[in-house]
Amino acid sequence: MSDERPIGIFDSGIGGLTVVKALRDLLPNENIAYLGDTARVPYGPKSPDTVQRYALELAGMLMKQNAKALVVACNTVSSVAIPALTKNFPVPVIGVIEPGARAALAVTRTKHIAVIGTRATIRSGAYEKTLRAMAQDVQVKSQACPLLVPLIEEGLLSDPVTEQMILRYLDPLLSGEVDTLVLGCTHYPLLTDAIARVLKRQIMIVDSAHNCARAVEQMLDQHGLRAAPLNNGKLQVALTDTPDSFLNIAREALHLSFGQIELRALP
Amino acid sequence: MSDERPIGIFDSGIGGLTVVKALRDLLPNENIAYLGDTARVPYGPKSPDTVQRYALELAGMLMKQNAKALVVACNTVSSVAIPALTKNFPVPVIGVIEPGARAALAVTRTKHIAVIGTRATIRSGAYEKTLRAMAQDVQVKSQACPLLVPLIEEGLLSDPVTEQMILRYLDPLLSGEVDTLVLGCTHYPLLTDAIARVLKRQIMIVDSAHNCARAVEQMLDQHGLRAAPLNNGKLQVALTDTPDSFLNIAREALHLSFGQIELRALP
Repeated sequence: MSDERPIGIFDSGIGGLTVVKALRDLLPNENIAYLGDTARVPYGPKSPDTVQRYALELAGMLMKQNAKALVVACNTVSSVAIPALTKNFPVPVIGVIEPGARAALAVTRTKHIAVIGTRATIRSGAYEKTLRAMAQDVQVKSQACPLLVPLIEEGLLSDPVTEQMILRYLDPLLSGEVDTLVLGCTHYPLLTDAIARVLKRQIMIVDSAHNCARAVEQMLDQHGLRAAPLNNGKLQVALTDTPDSFLNIAREALHLSFGQIELRALP
Repeated sequence: MSDERPIGIFDSGIGGLTVVKALRDLLPNENIAYLGDTARVPYGPKSPDTVQRYALELAGMLMKQNAKALVVACNTVSSVAIPALTKNFPVPVIGVIEPGARAALAVTRTKHIAVIGTRATIRSGAYEKTLRAMAQDVQVKSQACPLLVPLIEEGLLSDPVTEQMILRYLDPLLSGEVDTLVLGCTHYPLLTDAIARVLKRQIMIVDSAHNCARAVEQMLDQHGLRAAPLNNGKLQVALTDTPDSFLNIAREALHLSFGQIELRALP
């Protein structure tokens, strides 16, 4: 038995394509419908109520495309909207935070973990709560890095200004016994090389995109939702507003190929 | 005869408060209703159609507050939505681009003018078209500076990283005979000091906020719409989503005082 309905993935914009890339690599036979809310990006500075309302709208649009599961490829949305999404839709819902937290606990030796993300994600304390719920003795430090997304979206992936900002954000964070850094924003995997270059010492970098993809794989297996092994997975990308240069930056940096972008009106 | 109805001012977010500040200084007896669309900020990367639709929604909300005039305190909106606003509402509509262009032509000696703004404003070519329509022999160079708004919103108004980005954007622009720089984004007046510090040579800086305020003054006089000279002008600030730290940064940097922020739902 197999299920060729698409996995529905959404994000506030383009950043979630890092999760799509991880899913394509891991599950090449799955059909994927991606929806990025470029008309209202970024969600980082918005209130939890607004983010939750927008998330329900986007998920509803993907459900109309017959999605067999919903993947929230956005930390800001994952930090505030998973319960509402689970309650409102009859398919499995997977976010990026729980898989990221689980992976961080699997690799840390010192149990001192640092988390970076947008202001909304950090303010929500979602990683901290999730990590503590999984391991009571874990020490968590977190830091909002609000300028990293704009720098990434400008394509300054290896630029002195970006490296200065990374250093400024991370230097105070990575003191003491911290041995693991969670990239708590789906844009940040595009900075993995820059972060590794800037950091003076060895740190395990946990990338929420990869770990989210692994959690999706497990979930599909549990629920018997896998596409046929011979299915040639298709990727469809839809946005709520015409994309700017960042779409090309992400496409190139991720080596991701997809056809024409569909423009879809919000309800 | 006097008219105490408020002047309705709107912007994609908080940046338009630089225009409010200029209006308060110039016209202290006018009542002002400000509406910032913080739920959907920033407009810079959005398409012209989307920006125009949002502008009509915001203007409609201000008209329900009985606005006697509409001031578009946002270059992105001014660059694409003035005709639609003028057509749809029965009150005078003033943007920031025409006043800024007029002021630049008044101060330039070489007739070589540089314009900086968001990607949407620069892509629209609105300053260039307006300047050319006013003076055929003017030479215009323009440059999108997409990272300046995020840097300003982080409060990095006098920071080495901000100065590096200013230099990177402006150095190629201010070559040759350019003697005038138009700040084509309502956020940018908050960087006037940093820009003056970074630039190696004398440049006339034209600030769209001040020139917009002067245009509003003239328009009120022309249409007999002034408030009574003894009226103690009130400033009411409404936003479409709860404000983040930038509201306090702007309030402090501008020495602007206002009471409680009203949160207003979009239609």
